[in-house]
Amino acid sequence: MNLKRYLPILQWAPQYGRGQATSDLVAAVIVTVMLIPQSLAYALLAGLPAHVGLYASILPLVIYAVFGTSRTLSVGPVAVASLMTAAALAPLAEAGTPEYIAGAVLLAVMSGLMLTIMGVLRLGFLANFLSHPVISGFITASGIVIAASQLKHIFGIQASGHNLLTIGQSLILSIGNTNLATLAVGTGTLLFLVFARKRLKPLLTAMGQAPALADILTRTAPILAVLVTTLVAWQFQLDSQGVRLVGDVPRGLPDFTMPSLDTELWQQLAVSALLISVIGFVESVSVGQTLAAKRRQRIDPDQELIGLGAANLGAGFSGGMPVTGGFSRSVVNFDAGAETPAAGAYAAVGIALATLFLTPAIAYLPQATLAATIIVAVSTLIDLPALGRTWRYSRPDFGAMLATIVLTLVYSVEAGIVAGVALSIGLFLYRTSRPHCAVIGPVPGTEHFRNVLRHRVELCPRVTFLRVDESLYFANARFLEETVMDLVTGQPELQDLVLVCPAVNLVDASALESLETINERLTDAGVRLHLSDVKGPVMDRLGDTELLANLGGQVFLSAYEAWQALTRPAAAAQRSEPEHPYHGNDREPALCRPADHHRSDIPGDTD
Amino acid sequence: MNLKRYLPILQWAPQYGRGQATSDLVAAVIVTVMLIPQSLAYALLAGLPAHVGLYASILPLVIYAVFGTSRTLSVGPVAVASLMTAAALAPLAEAGTPEYIAGAVLLAVMSGLMLTIMGVLRLGFLANFLSHPVISGFITASGIVIAASQLKHIFGIQASGHNLLTIGQSLILSIGNTNLATLAVGTGTLLFLVFARKRLKPLLTAMGQAPALADILTRTAPILAVLVTTLVAWQFQLDSQGVRLVGDVPRGLPDFTMPSLDTELWQQLAVSALLISVIGFVESVSVGQTLAAKRRQRIDPDQELIGLGAANLGAGFSGGMPVTGGFSRSVVNFDAGAETPAAGAYAAVGIALATLFLTPAIAYLPQATLAATIIVAVSTLIDLPALGRTWRYSRPDFGAMLATIVLTLVYSVEAGIVAGVALSIGLFLYRTSRPHCAVIGPVPGTEHFRNVLRHRVELCPRVTFLRVDESLYFANARFLEETVMDLVTGQPELQDLVLVCPAVNLVDASALESLETINERLTDAGVRLHLSDVKGPVMDRLGDTELLANLGGQVFLSAYEAWQALTRPAAAAQRSEPEHPYHGNDREPALCRPADHHRSDIPGDTD
Repeated sequence: MNLKRYLPILQWAPQYGRGQATSDLVAAVIVTVMLIPQSLAYALLAGLPAHVGLYASILPLVIYAVFGTSRTLSVGPVAVASLMTAAALAPLAEAGTPEYIAGAVLLAVMSGLMLTIMGVLRLGFLANFLSHPVISGFITASGIVIAASQLKHIFGIQASGHNLLTIGQSLILSIGNTNLATLAVGTGTLLFLVFARKRLKPLLTAMGQAPALADILTRTAPILAVLVTTLVAWQFQLDSQGVRLVGDVPRGLPDFTMPSLDTELWQQLAVSALLISVIGFVESVSVGQTLAAKRRQRIDPDQELIGLGAANLGAGFSGGMPVTGGFSRSVVNFDAGAETPAAGAYAAVGIALATLFLTPAIAYLPQATLAATIIVAVSTLIDLPALGRTWRYSRPDFGAMLATIVLTLVYSVEAGIVAGVALSIGLFLYRTSRPHCAVIGPVPGTEHFRNVLRHRVELCPRVTFLRVDESLYFANARFLEETVMDLVTGQPELQDLVLVCPAVNLVDASALESLETINERLTDAGVRLHLSDVKGPVMDRLGDTELLANLGGQVFLSAYEAWQALTRPAAAAQRSEPEHPYHGNDREPALCRPADHHRSDIPGDTD
Repeated sequence: MNLKRYLPILQWAPQYGRGQATSDLVAAVIVTVMLIPQSLAYALLAGLPAHVGLYASILPLVIYAVFGTSRTLSVGPVAVASLMTAAALAPLAEAGTPEYIAGAVLLAVMSGLMLTIMGVLRLGFLANFLSHPVISGFITASGIVIAASQLKHIFGIQASGHNLLTIGQSLILSIGNTNLATLAVGTGTLLFLVFARKRLKPLLTAMGQAPALADILTRTAPILAVLVTTLVAWQFQLDSQGVRLVGDVPRGLPDFTMPSLDTELWQQLAVSALLISVIGFVESVSVGQTLAAKRRQRIDPDQELIGLGAANLGAGFSGGMPVTGGFSRSVVNFDAGAETPAAGAYAAVGIALATLFLTPAIAYLPQATLAATIIVAVSTLIDLPALGRTWRYSRPDFGAMLATIVLTLVYSVEAGIVAGVALSIGLFLYRTSRPHCAVIGPVPGTEHFRNVLRHRVELCPRVTFLRVDESLYFANARFLEETVMDLVTGQPELQDLVLVCPAVNLVDASALESLETINERLTDAGVRLHLSDVKGPVMDRLGDTELLANLGGQVFLSAYEAWQALTRPAAAAQRSEPEHPYHGNDREPALCRPADHHRSDIPGDTD
């Protein structure tokens, strides 16, 4: 049982049959055709030699097939993680140098360790800290930065930078050096890929192809672009025209790579590795769950952490770069009929064959072609309308999203994601720190209590009923203190305050102390604090505390019970607290009267 | 109106009368007598010359009287802020050097600026991030560290460090150099102060003094110790015995001090200044509110930020150290009858007079006396039983508290507080990230729905009712996705899922997207998603969204309405969704039956 949890391959491999193998093989061929240009392109995006992308597409896929729980997730280099890799390594070394490559390997290893540890400790919930608007904003902004960073390859110029400002400045300074042959290859590929994406499928369908086949043919456009431009570059010796090609790629399978053990380097890369891990995990789980749900399968997020972690360890130790589940490839894999993770392993064999036999040809591949592939691929990540949707739905969420986008664009990917997470947590705490509170009273002739601001209810100047519609915890504990004390200072006749708690699911230690403080302050001010409608589990915990031992008033089962006990003249006559100096309330109870509208000082009272 | 908000002095000064002035003067004398040794001692604790403590007790008190909203808060140097000042400055300069003093001045100015800006922007809610267990743990640990740091003065040895490990190591190394005369003064003072605190008041009361007077006389014990040991030191020339005295103190009022404008220094001190500000603010507001409540007065936390901010700016620009509202002094001020903040201003005059005329005497004050004063004062801060109380009440709160204490003790005050805040926020998000969910069904013959695990309810294999008892937001959005998909994969017969939402007060953008995702996945899996019992304000927001536009099912007013609509055979017969490949559920509806116990896969199901 436990073995099957940690080795999900045992769940499907024993029943693996010929039918599944055929489906998986077909899917693997299609995915391999997509993955070759993608792995080269994302290595380029990460500032790494092309073969690092290929290496990251062999062993990790095999390992994920053993440890992963998604049947159709296609693991490998992806755009956002590649950008984050480049941003993390830029301050440490020049792109493409041995130190830089060692940094990428270390990032993969660290990311693998972190994911594996998080999986074993079942820390998958940490991904919850990334709210949807923050992820969406981050991916949109990353897409824009990635596209901008590839323009230099389209124009054949030198440029650098990891945010829009530095990239833009760098591009403007060297736009005069544009290489026209490169520009021709780049824009030609770009136009072809855009055409393929927008028009080819309708065209093929109109020409009588089956929609599924038309879709698959459309997906092969990038490999077609790679083939054609490589041939052109080879035929016309474009490198002599100044067109930058991928160049020599080491032939053969990756060797075992020992990651750096330099502790200073580990420290420098720790935050980046964590962010790459978490973002990659969230993306993978999101696409994995979407695809699994279509077949009523499920994935286990904590085991996914282990699967992705092992895949990244595999990437690092075989000289690759950080990997994760890619969205578009996984969808293709699913649509092409992959039934088990074996499809991924077959794709790994495809990439291994490419590494063994295609590398001489890859040397002639123009970088502009890869850049065009990246630009078209990331254009689907950019979702600016989401800003409008989020604005209309929720201002705080919009704020977190905008902060993420702006900081990612103008400063750095890491600052963007960290600010977005901090802001969304802060804004959530802020929202719950001012829970909805209402002064309530009984609807005449019934046992129902309603908000005095909304309903015609009975009121008694000596007794106030306050309902709090939220769990009580540290972020709203002080708000509760202030709300209660404001109520009390505004009502010199007050003798009893009833806190009505039907919506309180939790009272944490901070709120408990605040309640104790409120009780003490009310006692000092000659007011008794009562509780009513306390839920069972909350009451169980409060049972042993000093709050109940010292409570000035009582715990009532319901607000109505409290109303009956506290507003009858007999109840008021019974009281005697002469020892307290600030208690000046021994007059006869005022008559309890119905009221149309009773002003309440509580902010945010909307019920 | 607005002027009165920002200048609270206008609320009381116009009606200020002779009676109030008399009460305030009496309180001011008593507070001054307490404040002289405290301001000297806390300067020593902060590693600063004694006069810096006096300077911080003049102008800030006058300024707080103008801008503060508490009638009885006694502003000035306090123990915890002094420890934090020392910890912040230790890496920058040698204690007592001009650079070190300039750092303390800058900390006061930065803290003043931060508090003022937070007040103007009404950011007082930021203090909510500090949960009670974290503050309590932090103050306990700070008290221990402070007491330990003063032992060197009692033994008359050299020692350093800002956590228990370094202080302890340093003490052990030099304990052999103990100065016996210093030890005599230190332990003598310590014993006297402990006696005064524990026994003097009962003794005086037994001797026929009024309890109030006995209390005030007890409070003068520190100044008595100061007077006696100063006289002894002067008479017997104790400095020649190796007893370290306070030494020459500049005579006269503080000059205007220009804070450093070194931007690097500002950056280095920014985090420390923020922590000192927030901790000081939380302590001040807490004691201010407690005292105000006793007289049914109130304080305005946002204006308190401005009052404390202005006081710290005053401290900085007059060569002082960070200040905040002190607990014990404020209580004495209150008990002694202070009625307005003018009492604080009068105490400032008292300290100014001391600075003008008592400094020659202060030069002979042994540091061991001050150290004993500090140790006795901070011993009241240490609340170890709170650990046990918190453990019994709530494990997550205990975790945050313990982390704060341990890190503060063995690493640093700043690490302690930051870890505590991060952990308490993280644990809260974790708690709400797994809200209570229950599969519910109707109690036969009624319209009431109850948890299937707890009650005998009707069930229908085609329709599941899931109730979520929490607002839906980013931290539990993914949990909801997983819970729903687990339910669906476990029930191949399922055709309808009803999400019952009576306890959902908020659906943020993340949860909205999760609901959309759930809806899509369920539609893909041939299950219709319905909602019921959606609260009015939540429904208003959902109204315009794609969720409702694309909802596979309907929105029902109540779970019972949904039950009636979905479980009648007619409803099932009407459906037709033949286009979907994974929908294999066209058989006749199974008979809906009552069930005793229906296994649910939902974790944490306890209702």
